[in-house]
Amino acid sequence: MDMFLSVDIGGTSIKLGMVDDEGYIRRRASFSTRTLNSQFTANQILYFIKNLDILGVGLAVPGPVSPEGELLMLPNVDSAMLEVISRIQNELEAFPVALVNDANAAALGELWRGAGEGAQDLIFITLGTGVGAGVVQAGKLVVGAHGAGGEVGHLTMEYGKDAPLCGCGKRGCLERYASATGLVSLYKQEAEELHEEIIALDNESDSKSVFEAAEKGSRAAQNAITRAMQYLGRALAQLSAAMDPEVYVIGGGMSAGFEDFIPYLEKAYTENALKAATNTPIKQAVLGNDAGMIGAAYFVKTALGK
Amino acid sequence: MDMFLSVDIGGTSIKLGMVDDEGYIRRRASFSTRTLNSQFTANQILYFIKNLDILGVGLAVPGPVSPEGELLMLPNVDSAMLEVISRIQNELEAFPVALVNDANAAALGELWRGAGEGAQDLIFITLGTGVGAGVVQAGKLVVGAHGAGGEVGHLTMEYGKDAPLCGCGKRGCLERYASATGLVSLYKQEAEELHEEIIALDNESDSKSVFEAAEKGSRAAQNAITRAMQYLGRALAQLSAAMDPEVYVIGGGMSAGFEDFIPYLEKAYTENALKAATNTPIKQAVLGNDAGMIGAAYFVKTALGK
Repeated sequence: MDMFLSVDIGGTSIKLGMVDDEGYIRRRASFSTRTLNSQFTANQILYFIKNLDILGVGLAVPGPVSPEGELLMLPNVDSAMLEVISRIQNELEAFPVALVNDANAAALGELWRGAGEGAQDLIFITLGTGVGAGVVQAGKLVVGAHGAGGEVGHLTMEYGKDAPLCGCGKRGCLERYASATGLVSLYKQEAEELHEEIIALDNESDSKSVFEAAEKGSRAAQNAITRAMQYLGRALAQLSAAMDPEVYVIGGGMSAGFEDFIPYLEKAYTENALKAATNTPIKQAVLGNDAGMIGAAYFVKTALGK
Repeated sequence: MDMFLSVDIGGTSIKLGMVDDEGYIRRRASFSTRTLNSQFTANQILYFIKNLDILGVGLAVPGPVSPEGELLMLPNVDSAMLEVISRIQNELEAFPVALVNDANAAALGELWRGAGEGAQDLIFITLGTGVGAGVVQAGKLVVGAHGAGGEVGHLTMEYGKDAPLCGCGKRGCLERYASATGLVSLYKQEAEELHEEIIALDNESDSKSVFEAAEKGSRAAQNAITRAMQYLGRALAQLSAAMDPEVYVIGGGMSAGFEDFIPYLEKAYTENALKAATNTPIKQAVLGNDAGMIGAAYFVKTALGK
């Protein structure tokens, strides 16, 4: 059985997995960035990847990758992580390494072994601190000519100087409304307007508490969810008019509240999509944090023609 | 040299072409729908396609085609045309026939032998009475799971009940602003608001006269062009955030005014696109009315693996 090594690099952790050619993770290890500087962690990682019987390495990274497979930047990763990546690459230089953006890897994971199994055209949306996406067309990732394919979080939903500024420099981007952070921010606006007392929030992207507040009857939370999903539904309708995928798959931390928000999302999508595409299914991702590892293995597997 | 027959069916004409495997039209004929009922025309068409030494037939149609290659509907075609299509299909049943939507065929034509030559990822936009598009990813058409891929004319640019109603049943669609018809309609609105006398127009999609009026200093015409291109630029920026193509190619009747509108289009696109994609070239189509025939030949050629 062919085996592949997946290395999934996140902002706060690095995950390693041995993935077989049917998409099952056979062995795994995970390290927090806080411990990356320790020799012990470095040795453990090198131990994991030593003497591997693998065909190739899929390396999922939290940044854009060029169409030629080069890492363009790693905006949210600290220097200890860069050092680890470089050591891993040295250790593995005998193997073919295929680099893939983490949201793209997760899209491939859900396509191969997740909610989109069997589909050829899929759009995976990850709702977390931002909104990321992976677009698959005819079984292949749409990377884009400048590595900007699948930058769905930067679809413009509101124009003009009153629209909220995004980290990308533009205004009114989808991720300012429909990410976990966007939802919390909409909730605060609504609570202020309705003179509702603001609930305790763990952090600026604590969407879970907003869903709970809505459940308990908070009008501000309910309005915030409706608005966030109206923007997301409109965005999916735009994507359908351009690419008309077979299925949407929603992942990321905020997808834990899928049951809470899907009725609003489906309503907004159906109201805005072309008739032919109104029934496109919108599914919850099923692989959770494993999607990136499984997808990175799939990426290197197909790159090697296996 | 391999040869292919292209049949390009339009609302008012049917064009036939023998296209060689380098994309050159070797022989051609064109018939107006007004004469389709005559036996003479029918005989001429059958004469053209008799005893052909071809590998296959590319049939470009003005309606959506399913992913399985079936014609879903022909909204703007009269019954005489349907009769002709059926006779052609009978006559050619010995050959493989590949059906392709006309905007998609034009996209492939411009990719193969036109303004997008050499590109792998291209979006072709046709500005005519409506706004059509053909999306090519990794050298292949994005047809969509329900045949709605490339329905770029129905990207929503304005929401709410004040946005103009579109033929598709939605409001605020791109083609209500950026088609030739949309431009004329914006011009009339602007002229009314500015109390400008409306110029003589040949018809409801006479964009040429609007460009001429702008040239002669009409403020209403200038405003209309700026607005139409602001919407189109925003739409292209949305497409770049989703797919990030290498190049946009603009065709259709209104592209005769390309020199007049491209500065406004580029400005609007650059203001709204993600930084990585701000320099994506926007080119004028070069094949004119031949794009569909050349692209239909390319479509059947690649379908046959040639």
